[in-house]
Amino acid sequence: MTMTPTSATGTTVADIGERALVDRITRRLPQPAWVVVGPGDDAAVIEPERGTLDVLTTDALVEGVHFDRRFVPPEAIGHRALAVNLSDLAAMGARPRAALLSLALPAAFEVADLDRLLDGLLALAASERVAVVGGNITRSPGPLMVDLTATGSVKRRRVLTRAGARAGDDVYVTGTLGDAAVGLLSLAREPSGPALAPRGAMSAAEARYLRPEPRVRAGVLLGQQKVASACIDLSDGLADGVRRIAEASGVGITIRADDLPFGPDVRTWFASEPARMLDTTLRGGDDYELLFTCSPRARGRLRGVTALLGGLPITRIGTVTKGRDTRVRTPADDLPMPEGFAHFG
Amino acid sequence: MTMTPTSATGTTVADIGERALVDRITRRLPQPAWVVVGPGDDAAVIEPERGTLDVLTTDALVEGVHFDRRFVPPEAIGHRALAVNLSDLAAMGARPRAALLSLALPAAFEVADLDRLLDGLLALAASERVAVVGGNITRSPGPLMVDLTATGSVKRRRVLTRAGARAGDDVYVTGTLGDAAVGLLSLAREPSGPALAPRGAMSAAEARYLRPEPRVRAGVLLGQQKVASACIDLSDGLADGVRRIAEASGVGITIRADDLPFGPDVRTWFASEPARMLDTTLRGGDDYELLFTCSPRARGRLRGVTALLGGLPITRIGTVTKGRDTRVRTPADDLPMPEGFAHFG
Repeated sequence: MTMTPTSATGTTVADIGERALVDRITRRLPQPAWVVVGPGDDAAVIEPERGTLDVLTTDALVEGVHFDRRFVPPEAIGHRALAVNLSDLAAMGARPRAALLSLALPAAFEVADLDRLLDGLLALAASERVAVVGGNITRSPGPLMVDLTATGSVKRRRVLTRAGARAGDDVYVTGTLGDAAVGLLSLAREPSGPALAPRGAMSAAEARYLRPEPRVRAGVLLGQQKVASACIDLSDGLADGVRRIAEASGVGITIRADDLPFGPDVRTWFASEPARMLDTTLRGGDDYELLFTCSPRARGRLRGVTALLGGLPITRIGTVTKGRDTRVRTPADDLPMPEGFAHFG
Repeated sequence: MTMTPTSATGTTVADIGERALVDRITRRLPQPAWVVVGPGDDAAVIEPERGTLDVLTTDALVEGVHFDRRFVPPEAIGHRALAVNLSDLAAMGARPRAALLSLALPAAFEVADLDRLLDGLLALAASERVAVVGGNITRSPGPLMVDLTATGSVKRRRVLTRAGARAGDDVYVTGTLGDAAVGLLSLAREPSGPALAPRGAMSAAEARYLRPEPRVRAGVLLGQQKVASACIDLSDGLADGVRRIAEASGVGITIRADDLPFGPDVRTWFASEPARMLDTTLRGGDDYELLFTCSPRARGRLRGVTALLGGLPITRIGTVTKGRDTRVRTPADDLPMPEGFAHFG
């Protein structure tokens, strides 16, 4: 990225003004051929492929609610703003296509930090081939807010929703769980836990919190290959995801605690506290893995998808049941599913 | 609208929690047949008509920047959040289709006010046949923010941009100008001006500020009938709109001050100050009229559109010129176009 003289540390957004800010962002946005009108006009115009559906999602990151600028660098804020939206598209089986970026910036927000925020966002956009086709920029008299809307496309019969789980289906999750929650505890240094990485290095858990990797390819394949009967992304924790699939599908779900794929840093952090490890993993948000259900008849197709995904583990963690109960089975006990993270109250 | 017991005055969003808030909003959103997956899943899925383009826009309203809750009621905030986005679509010639609503709410924001905000937004959505197909809700540690993304559709050869103006085209504007700026002055009571309406009644100018009417039908017709060579909506004032069309089209524009369609309240407010009237009308934002250029060959088609629009006046206010100068001609003088409203600095 080329730095212009105005991006020197200390320059605020108020110093350079709105038009310069918009130009600064706009000129960094590559526009593929299916973008008919890109940034700079009243709205963006895209032409999706024929026969496919447009999928739309929006998610806001608010300073003091979703991130703490004391330990979350601007690149991570930008990465995360796009990642959480791509994760929503992945949970629908949609291939991401375009994004709109809406920024509310405190007047004292530094231009250098804006550049770094864009670095993080655009690196992920490039690697997932998402075009930022427009957006909006305004002043915030309070916190920094980054609101991103993403669109994607999916064939009509390949859409994944939360509503298709049936009794007898198995429950699976991609990747590992609990890493982001432990990463946040470690970054916030409260309570002080064990060292997860050598001094000055970033632990795997911290990296997971700062740069969640949306499971775009997994979501697309789970839909394309008709593997998943229901799917959700774990933005608000496993307990929340389990409850929501159960509610939307009108089923119960039992999760087996011993089968959960805890991340390695999670086991280190909670070495002497298995109960807290389970609770944090169930309730902690920000994992951005996919939780999905799969009928026993689709197991062969699931093996095919697992092979295509290579390094990403997919773990069977439970069963869809009749009734409406969501439960966690441990070797000692059979517990009701805890509540997930609440944004209010 | 049915009020539930929890909407009693004094209940805050923190009191009822996120899930109840989402349900409260979601159950009020009608979903037309082309919505494949509506609110409540990870993302919305819509199926646009074949052969048409999807147009996307997003715009945020921030308390303390775009509105003052002391004199802007919640209904007006909701109306405006959608109106400003529909105005952007209109400026592209696009018919609005779907919207995503992203809310950042202070914990003490009252649920009754949230209901009223939705009243204003959904009344406009119903009258313009826009479906709210999804969104996001989060807590704000600072001001209320309402970020809305709207999508619309337009045929490929009917898209209006800012870039098509040619020397010799005429410049037109819909409706009247300056009303919203005077309405804001009157509502904010600074400086104290003349009474525009009987005590206790709302003046036309105040109504224009609080409930701008997006020129959706005009925009669609100007594109469909191939009338406008360039088009923009006047969100940031006439001077800003003129400059942006000139820049994007690589032309100059001269506006004739005597031909501007000042609103009646504007003439009353500035009765003894014609210079301030002109300056406020050029620089004042929030009119949300359409500014467009039209080649002399398209004048017949413009008359047809004017007839179809019935009561909405369309006024010729200037000319597109060679060079890059933007100017205002008064009987006494020929002035450079002033700067528009700046969001930063």
